[in-house]
Amino acid sequence: MDSQERRPWGIGVAGLGTVGAGLIDFLGGDPAFAPAGGLFHVSGVSARSRSRPRPVDISSIPWFDDPVALAQAKETDIFVELIGGSDGPAKAAVEAALRAGKPVVTANKALIAEHGAELAALAEEMRVPLKFEAAVMGGVPAVKIVREGLVGETINTIAGILNGTCNYILTEMETSGRSFADVLGDAQRLGYAEADPTMDVGGFDAGHKITILAALAFNCTPDFKAAEVEGIEQIELLDIRMAKDLGYRIKLIASAERAGDGARVRVRPSLVPLDHPLAQAGGALNALFIEGDRIGRFFIQGPGAGAGPTAAAVAADLADVMTGGSRPTFQAPVQDLPPLQRVDPRQMTGRAYMRFLVRDEPGVIAAVSETLAEAGVSIESFLQKPSEGAAGVPIVLTTHAAPEATLAEAVERIAGLSAVLDRPRMLRIVRI
Amino acid sequence: MDSQERRPWGIGVAGLGTVGAGLIDFLGGDPAFAPAGGLFHVSGVSARSRSRPRPVDISSIPWFDDPVALAQAKETDIFVELIGGSDGPAKAAVEAALRAGKPVVTANKALIAEHGAELAALAEEMRVPLKFEAAVMGGVPAVKIVREGLVGETINTIAGILNGTCNYILTEMETSGRSFADVLGDAQRLGYAEADPTMDVGGFDAGHKITILAALAFNCTPDFKAAEVEGIEQIELLDIRMAKDLGYRIKLIASAERAGDGARVRVRPSLVPLDHPLAQAGGALNALFIEGDRIGRFFIQGPGAGAGPTAAAVAADLADVMTGGSRPTFQAPVQDLPPLQRVDPRQMTGRAYMRFLVRDEPGVIAAVSETLAEAGVSIESFLQKPSEGAAGVPIVLTTHAAPEATLAEAVERIAGLSAVLDRPRMLRIVRI
Repeated sequence: MDSQERRPWGIGVAGLGTVGAGLIDFLGGDPAFAPAGGLFHVSGVSARSRSRPRPVDISSIPWFDDPVALAQAKETDIFVELIGGSDGPAKAAVEAALRAGKPVVTANKALIAEHGAELAALAEEMRVPLKFEAAVMGGVPAVKIVREGLVGETINTIAGILNGTCNYILTEMETSGRSFADVLGDAQRLGYAEADPTMDVGGFDAGHKITILAALAFNCTPDFKAAEVEGIEQIELLDIRMAKDLGYRIKLIASAERAGDGARVRVRPSLVPLDHPLAQAGGALNALFIEGDRIGRFFIQGPGAGAGPTAAAVAADLADVMTGGSRPTFQAPVQDLPPLQRVDPRQMTGRAYMRFLVRDEPGVIAAVSETLAEAGVSIESFLQKPSEGAAGVPIVLTTHAAPEATLAEAVERIAGLSAVLDRPRMLRIVRI
Repeated sequence: MDSQERRPWGIGVAGLGTVGAGLIDFLGGDPAFAPAGGLFHVSGVSARSRSRPRPVDISSIPWFDDPVALAQAKETDIFVELIGGSDGPAKAAVEAALRAGKPVVTANKALIAEHGAELAALAEEMRVPLKFEAAVMGGVPAVKIVREGLVGETINTIAGILNGTCNYILTEMETSGRSFADVLGDAQRLGYAEADPTMDVGGFDAGHKITILAALAFNCTPDFKAAEVEGIEQIELLDIRMAKDLGYRIKLIASAERAGDGARVRVRPSLVPLDHPLAQAGGALNALFIEGDRIGRFFIQGPGAGAGPTAAAVAADLADVMTGGSRPTFQAPVQDLPPLQRVDPRQMTGRAYMRFLVRDEPGVIAAVSETLAEAGVSIESFLQKPSEGAAGVPIVLTTHAAPEATLAEAVERIAGLSAVLDRPRMLRIVRI
C-alpha cells in the first residue's frame, strides 16, 4: 500500500484570497498528509495582484501572472482553482489544466453548478480527477459524504442551511431586533458580507451548493438552471417575530427532494420548528439533513466557510488525488448521467405560513378563513396581534399540507379581499 | 476515468445476521453502484447455520461451511466479514483473506480496535485494502470523515454517543421513570439489547469505536487497552432526575482528547447540558462532535446501527475498493505509526457531578462543603431535595474544573464523614 508515486507533487494555486492564503499556510505548515507521504510542494501561484498585502509570504513561490499559464506549467501536477466565478479566468484555467491532463481541485461552487457536466466530461476524457469538496459547506465533508459515504443509498431528501451569511443575518435580525438592511450593512462593514451581497442574500450561493449535492444524491448532472431560488431580502422583522410566536424560526433552506420520476431543487426562506436541529444552527453555521431509504435521517452541522475550514477541504481533495482511485466526477461517467428531471412544482404539496395586513374591522378574519376554506386550504394555527401602528393589523396563519397551486390560488383570492391592505406574504414550512 | 477492471467482482460474505442479510438484500437489489460500473455479484456466503430462517433467499448463492475457505476461494475478490468478535473465526477468516491477497471489508469494531495494527500491517504487506466504515456509527460515514475528509487537519477532540443501546436505555429511563434493570429487560425482550448486554451497557462497544476513531484522528495505531471504559450499569434514576434539575442529561459519552504529548480515550456516563446537541440525541441515535484546529467544531448525528445503515456503510467500502485508490489502512503505513500515548488521567482537569446520601441533620451541608473547600474543589451548584424515604437525604452538586486527582480525593474525604450514609457517586460533566 505504499505510494507508487514517490516524486514530490507540484501544486499550483490560482487565487490568493482568504482561502488561497489559508491553503498556502496549510500546505507550508505541517499538514501531516501521511497518506500521501507528505511529498508535495507549492510549485506556483497566480492572483490578480502580486503585491497586495497577504497574511502569508509568497516571495519564494514562482509567480504566474496568468492562471492559464500556471495550469499548463510543467511543474504543476495538480491545479487548485480558488479564483471564483462561474466563467472568465476560473473556467479558462480549469479547462486548460484538464486539457493538459492535470488533476483539478476547486472551491468554486458556481463553476461546478453551472458547468459541472462539461468539465466532468473533459476530466473523464483526459482521465484526470476533478474535485470540489470545498465548494459545499467548507470544512464539513458534505461532498465526500454524499459522493462516497452514501454511494448506493437511495437518497430522498437533502435539506439544510448552506449559506452562512444569510444565516448570520437572520440570526442577528432575531436577536437584535434590527431590520434586514441594518444588519446587512453591519455585516458588510465587518467583512461578513460582500460589497455586492446578491450571491449570498439572493440565495444564489446556496443554490449553487444544493445543485451540486442534488447531482451527487440523485445521480444526475448538475443543472443550476433547474433550481428555484429565492433569497432573504424580503424577510421582515415582523415575520421573524410572528413566526416565533407560532413556534418557528425563519431560515434560508436549500433543499433537493426526490418526487415522482424527478426531483425538485430550491432555495427559499422557510419556517423551521424551534426545536428542530436546523432551527438551532445559529450565526454563520451551516447544517444539513440527509434522508435515505436505508440510512434513515442524518444530520451534519459545522462551519460552512472561512479560510481554515475551506483550506482543510481543499487539502482533503489533494490527498484524494495523491492517493489515487478512479471515481468519475459525479456518480457515474458523465455520458451515462441524465440531467435533473424537474417535477412540476404545482404538483407538490406543502405547508405554508401566510401573513396579511388587514383593516381592523369586524368580519375580516371570517372573510380570510372562508376564502381559505373555499380554496381547499385547511388552517393549522392562527394569530392576530394588536395593531402596532395605524396602517392595519397583521394576521398570520399556518396551514396544513395542500398542493402548491392551491396555496398560491388561496393567497391570490385573499389578496383580492377589500379588507386586505397589502400584498400577502407566503413562506413555506420545512418538511424534513 | 472508466474502470480499468471490467470483470464482475465476486463478493464473499461471511456472517448472515441482521447486517449480513441486509447486505445481501442491498447487493441483490439495485444498489446503483455507478462508480464501480455495477459489476459485482455475491460469489459465496458463510454462516453458522445454513438452514436458519432469514429474510433473504440465499439458496442460489454458493455456500461455505468454513469462512476461512470462503475467504480463500478463488471466486472471492473481496471478503466481507460480518461474523463479529475480536478473535476466533472472524480474525482467522480476515487473516486468511488478507494472506490470499483479497481486499477485506468488515463491520467488526472489536477486531479492528484490538487487532487493527497487526491486520493493517498484513494488509499493507499484501498491498490490499482493509476497510471498516461499518464498524463505527452504522450508516453515518464517521470513519471516512475522519480518515479522508479531515486528513491533514489537527483534530483535538472527538466526543459523542456511539452506542445506541445505552442511549436508548438512558432515554427510556428518563421518559418512563423506570430503573436501569427494568428498561434493559424490556430492551432485551424487544431485541434492542443482546441476551448478554455486557458489550453494550458495559461501555465496551463504544470503547471499541472510539479507539478506532482516536487512531484515525491522532495518527496512531488503535489500542483498545489504552481506553478507560465505564458503562451505565450503575446509573440510577435518582441521578438522571437530579442531573436534570441541575440542567443536565446523563449520556454515555465516548471521547478521545489530545492532551500534552499524548491523548486520552475513554467511555463514561457524563452530564451534558440540556441545550447541548449531544443531550438532544435521544433514543437509539448516535451523535459525534469533532473539534479541530482549522475546521472548528462540527457535529454529526444519525442512526448508529441497524441492518440498513450498516449495510450501506459496507457498500460504501465495497465501492471504495472497486474504484481503486491506495491509502494505508490508518493515516500512514502502520510501521510509521506510534501507538497511542496515554496521558496520566490524574493530570487532567474536569468538572464533576457528585451525589451523597446524608443524614437529615444540621451541619451536614456545611461539613460537605468545608471538606470540598479543604481539598481545593470549588462548588458550582448545589441541590438538596426533600427526603423521599427513610434512608437519608440525597444531595447533589456540580463543581468547577479541578484536577481529577483532587476530585477523587475530595470524594474519598466526604465518604469518610460520619453523616454520609452511602458510597458517593461521581460523574463527569462533558467538556465539549
